[in-house]
Amino acid sequence: MSIYIDPEVAVSLRGYEVPERLGFGTAMAPVMFRAVCQDGCWSQGELIPYAPLTIDPAAKVLHYAQSCFEGMKAYRTAAGSIALFRPEKNAARMAYSAKRLCMPSVPESLFLDGVRTIAAYCANLVPGNRGESLYLRPFLIGTQADLTVSASTSYEFYVIASPSEAYHTGNMRLWVEREDARAAVGGTGDAKVGGNYAGSLLSVGRLKERGYDQSLWLNPADRSRVDELSGMNFFAVIEGKLHTPALSGSILEGITRNSLLKLARELGYDLVEGAIHIDTLLSQIASGVCTEAFACGTAAIISPISVIGDEAHSHELYQAPGPVAKALREALLDIQEGRAEDNFGWMQPVDPVNF
Amino acid sequence: MSIYIDPEVAVSLRGYEVPERLGFGTAMAPVMFRAVCQDGCWSQGELIPYAPLTIDPAAKVLHYAQSCFEGMKAYRTAAGSIALFRPEKNAARMAYSAKRLCMPSVPESLFLDGVRTIAAYCANLVPGNRGESLYLRPFLIGTQADLTVSASTSYEFYVIASPSEAYHTGNMRLWVEREDARAAVGGTGDAKVGGNYAGSLLSVGRLKERGYDQSLWLNPADRSRVDELSGMNFFAVIEGKLHTPALSGSILEGITRNSLLKLARELGYDLVEGAIHIDTLLSQIASGVCTEAFACGTAAIISPISVIGDEAHSHELYQAPGPVAKALREALLDIQEGRAEDNFGWMQPVDPVNF
Repeated sequence: MSIYIDPEVAVSLRGYEVPERLGFGTAMAPVMFRAVCQDGCWSQGELIPYAPLTIDPAAKVLHYAQSCFEGMKAYRTAAGSIALFRPEKNAARMAYSAKRLCMPSVPESLFLDGVRTIAAYCANLVPGNRGESLYLRPFLIGTQADLTVSASTSYEFYVIASPSEAYHTGNMRLWVEREDARAAVGGTGDAKVGGNYAGSLLSVGRLKERGYDQSLWLNPADRSRVDELSGMNFFAVIEGKLHTPALSGSILEGITRNSLLKLARELGYDLVEGAIHIDTLLSQIASGVCTEAFACGTAAIISPISVIGDEAHSHELYQAPGPVAKALREALLDIQEGRAEDNFGWMQPVDPVNF
Repeated sequence: MSIYIDPEVAVSLRGYEVPERLGFGTAMAPVMFRAVCQDGCWSQGELIPYAPLTIDPAAKVLHYAQSCFEGMKAYRTAAGSIALFRPEKNAARMAYSAKRLCMPSVPESLFLDGVRTIAAYCANLVPGNRGESLYLRPFLIGTQADLTVSASTSYEFYVIASPSEAYHTGNMRLWVEREDARAAVGGTGDAKVGGNYAGSLLSVGRLKERGYDQSLWLNPADRSRVDELSGMNFFAVIEGKLHTPALSGSILEGITRNSLLKLARELGYDLVEGAIHIDTLLSQIASGVCTEAFACGTAAIISPISVIGDEAHSHELYQAPGPVAKALREALLDIQEGRAEDNFGWMQPVDPVNF
């Protein structure tokens, strides 16, 4: 289906200046992509000026959190062109998340139209310094005005965009969260849905008071094993091997996680996808057997972990950033920013639209 | 603080007709109460015409489900006056829910102003047939436009209202949910937050295909015990005693549950608040030791359960509705609708505002 481009889009884009200090996810591009779904039928996609949404006060998203989202980036390559990173993976994950909350899937073609269109029109807004990008946020919300607890009959899909720096830059101090849980066994932990994030805020608030940055969530069944961070997957280098928790049903499969595993294999690292028992890990850090740990995600790429704290002890990692984190970060960014050969076929060029 | 009444409120209310077929939560009153909170400071409350909200596309509520709500009712009493049922309990629970998601509490006085004001101005819209009421929906959402996963700095509190019938009327067929979980140990199950409801929709969709109405959720740790329904608490009559699951951390403490326990004690029932093991319960139903079961909640009051189904068997309750469900429903409704003495001091009269 063709995409409708609102005549005001050109006006909005011409009048927009990228702020000097980017931050992450605060400066919003002046346009957005939108499509609506009524009783299972999707409308034409349209690119329109960024503006507040009008949402009925009784809409399902406001009461029952019927919402899911994706995070992805458009990169400016070394050659100056614009490219998306594995957008079909985001389309597939959003379809999975939508299904978990009884929402209609955004068709892959519509999803890709959305992210490509906004990247093409916002090509001039994609910043070009190392680690910078145009962060894209596709999201889907249930909009039916009806207070019964049931799936919405109407939905709106948007893609908004934000010229951004990398999310976390420095080293991170993690706190082992043994009190709260991010997700239940049989819950929504493997889907990218709003409720997972709302429930994690209290933990982060508590640990910030103790001087930590992020929660390290454990598996909900017996809280003996590492699951993930609130929005990033976990990796550790133990006896020279790269370990990451196997997908457990309560872990969100990160696209960066998936890509790093492929990349690490190519770079010759020994990989172990399996259980990481938290108590074992902490003693391995204390004894120096675990030399480095890091988290990864679209927004942050790779964030080295300097400390993992617990009720009893604070465990300092030997190296932060360590050589594996540095090597993988470089290798991934080199592909994303077009300095290295894209052997995996991950990058999808976008033709800028000039107006 | 005084409440601002928008001059358009009178116009909206005069032009409004209560629909003939009420349903539940679909017909919305033409006014709403609103207050905003910026960096911890609450604005004056205002009563304004019901209208779509304008919400920034990057608002926290749309992405990270920072939202909580309450359900309560304004009743028309036998004498024709209007009364609220234990509104301070809803204020307290909403404060608890807000805290769980790092949101500021709505001050009790503002919460009560909100529900009283909308009930007073909508007095003419409160339907008067048995079981009917003006359903009130207070809710709080995080509105800051910022894509970082962190608590919002700005919030909006609303109370909307809907002239309604009771939510469920007939007998309910429950399905024992052994696959999905409603909440995690250490999750948000004891708070009234959107994410709990979004995650429950898939289960309900599945069981409806099998001819059932509602999920019976088990405790998340080992799924051996009954927790609750998606939006109602569970009761069973076993060997003549009234059993309900003790609050476990993953059960939402219903105000109807709390009230029924007090009422049942006054009516002379033997009460047991404790663990209800699902396998024991099913065999007690099969053997006739458990004679009736019902669910309760603000919206539905009391809904008898006729069948509890499981992978292996479908267990039919001996009586639906049973005598205990009928007696408690009558006793509670008689207080709420002003036919019986309010010995507990539960009802708070509201003076209608005429214009």
